[in-house]
Amino acid sequence: MGGDHGCRVAVHGAKSALQSDTKITALYLVGNEAEVKPALAAAGLRDARVHVVHASEVLTMEDKPVTGLRKKKDCSILRAVDLVKEGKADAVISPGNTGGIVAASTIRLRTLEGVDRPAIACIIPTEHTPFVLIDGGANPESKPVHLLHQAIMGGIYAREVLGQKRPRIGILSNGTEDIKGNDLVREANKLCRAAEMSGVDYLGFIEGHDLFTGHVDVVVTDGFVGNIVLKTIESMASGFKRMLKSGFTKNVLRQAGAALAQGVFRDMKSRMDPEEHGGAPLLGLNGNVIKVHGSAREKVFANAIRQSATAVAHHLNQHIQREVAAANARLVVLA
Amino acid sequence: MGGDHGCRVAVHGAKSALQSDTKITALYLVGNEAEVKPALAAAGLRDARVHVVHASEVLTMEDKPVTGLRKKKDCSILRAVDLVKEGKADAVISPGNTGGIVAASTIRLRTLEGVDRPAIACIIPTEHTPFVLIDGGANPESKPVHLLHQAIMGGIYAREVLGQKRPRIGILSNGTEDIKGNDLVREANKLCRAAEMSGVDYLGFIEGHDLFTGHVDVVVTDGFVGNIVLKTIESMASGFKRMLKSGFTKNVLRQAGAALAQGVFRDMKSRMDPEEHGGAPLLGLNGNVIKVHGSAREKVFANAIRQSATAVAHHLNQHIQREVAAANARLVVLA
Repeated sequence: MGGDHGCRVAVHGAKSALQSDTKITALYLVGNEAEVKPALAAAGLRDARVHVVHASEVLTMEDKPVTGLRKKKDCSILRAVDLVKEGKADAVISPGNTGGIVAASTIRLRTLEGVDRPAIACIIPTEHTPFVLIDGGANPESKPVHLLHQAIMGGIYAREVLGQKRPRIGILSNGTEDIKGNDLVREANKLCRAAEMSGVDYLGFIEGHDLFTGHVDVVVTDGFVGNIVLKTIESMASGFKRMLKSGFTKNVLRQAGAALAQGVFRDMKSRMDPEEHGGAPLLGLNGNVIKVHGSAREKVFANAIRQSATAVAHHLNQHIQREVAAANARLVVLA
Repeated sequence: MGGDHGCRVAVHGAKSALQSDTKITALYLVGNEAEVKPALAAAGLRDARVHVVHASEVLTMEDKPVTGLRKKKDCSILRAVDLVKEGKADAVISPGNTGGIVAASTIRLRTLEGVDRPAIACIIPTEHTPFVLIDGGANPESKPVHLLHQAIMGGIYAREVLGQKRPRIGILSNGTEDIKGNDLVREANKLCRAAEMSGVDYLGFIEGHDLFTGHVDVVVTDGFVGNIVLKTIESMASGFKRMLKSGFTKNVLRQAGAALAQGVFRDMKSRMDPEEHGGAPLLGLNGNVIKVHGSAREKVFANAIRQSATAVAHHLNQHIQREVAAANARLVVLA
């Protein structure tokens, strides 16, 4: 309910995902029945796996997360998260208020044993393979151990869901030498080295210059820096798009050039489209939670549904819980 | 001496700047005479304003700033900074080791009265006017008052050197509401509001999404975040350039398209070229210090020389000292 384009895009996305993914056994559409049911009819979605769960309220972008959830007990995000809590659903997908999604799912689902804080894993496309930026903003005041857990969770996500065989993980800093950084990242770097994470290559510090060169698969930051980096990248990508568009439509000659070279734009769009990967999973919780962009359209919803199905099929959270427990135990022994 | 392309590019840049700027009364080329003098001859630079100052050593990119400066007493960056200290020169420009430039100029020139720490102001091109990102990495562990001083210095730079009439200044955070951010930026935000900076619009918090939309002229961050944002932007710009280049050369059709639309690339290059503005000034010191990119070529040196001449002509540091003193006094009254 909380997205820019209403529930119609979610319904169409669900239809597309159900058609292509036979492993899905149930799909709940949570929101105001008076809007959802007509959208279902309009989309021609008739599938026994689809269930509509009524919620009379919506947490809007204007609501403060925690106070908003307290006031709107019957809002769609709480109803949706509760389906996961009750074991009816394995994953929840929402285009709504990010703070609201983080608050609702943290309060209702709780973090996995051994994990203190959930973190948003944003999948950033590049000309090479995409990288995971974790944390994109769930936890703006992180402690070193949170960054360690983010490294573990991001590595597992890259391997199990994105299919990267041996993810390369780095902590984002202002230079690559161990003496660089601030207290937070220097301490986190020591923890990551001591934890001896398995199945990944831990690179130590990486810097901004490494992000788009294909040298790193998982970029670990606190939620403050991660949110700034994420939005800087989004802002710059939009700026480039606008410049290319206005440049190539300026006169007839350039329009002709664009027509001849249209393959370039098609390639770039398919490679750099953040929507290809669905949404940003919120990792570290007892359940799978995926935040999709407020502006998401049906393709994003369909991809996010498939993305959550992959996470479920690969037992993502069991991997996370096991590897976090192993790392925590190793650090206790060393302490 | 410390750049990637030797002293030849600095000599050619000096020649170009001297030709176009008659207000320059003296220009010192500091470095190994055995390299500088042949480069002067090869460039055909014969001008009574040019003086060669010999320095037998170079601080390389591999040197640790402080220990390197202690060992290499006769390195070119110290000799160059000393010309400013002795009053022979008004500004120093270097393509060398950034940490070395910051250390050498802070040790020898000292900060302006009232300013605790120098900050690097990076001028980031956008499709609109460029913005100043301050601090780009001089001071990775900032206190709130450092961010206030950066806001003041960045605002003055934008006005006096970049010619922006009433610069809009924001502190980079993970959202625009005052309750967002971490302790550092929330405290700095209070100081910036209390300081009532003159001749600028203080916007409060801005977020990454605001960087490339033309809504802000001065982006204030600590040196850790600033360095990450700066390098992320550089990395992403290089990635885009590579993608466009490989895309438009892939086959004959696309090459023809590129030929027709070559004006697009020319426009983008001239608008987005970081070299147009010369280098990144290190602000807050008794003297003008400009860091140019290690890969800088003659155009960058020429622009940096003109850029420093503008800073000198506009009495940049007197403005900074006066406005910082006024802000500090106001905060003392409020405390």
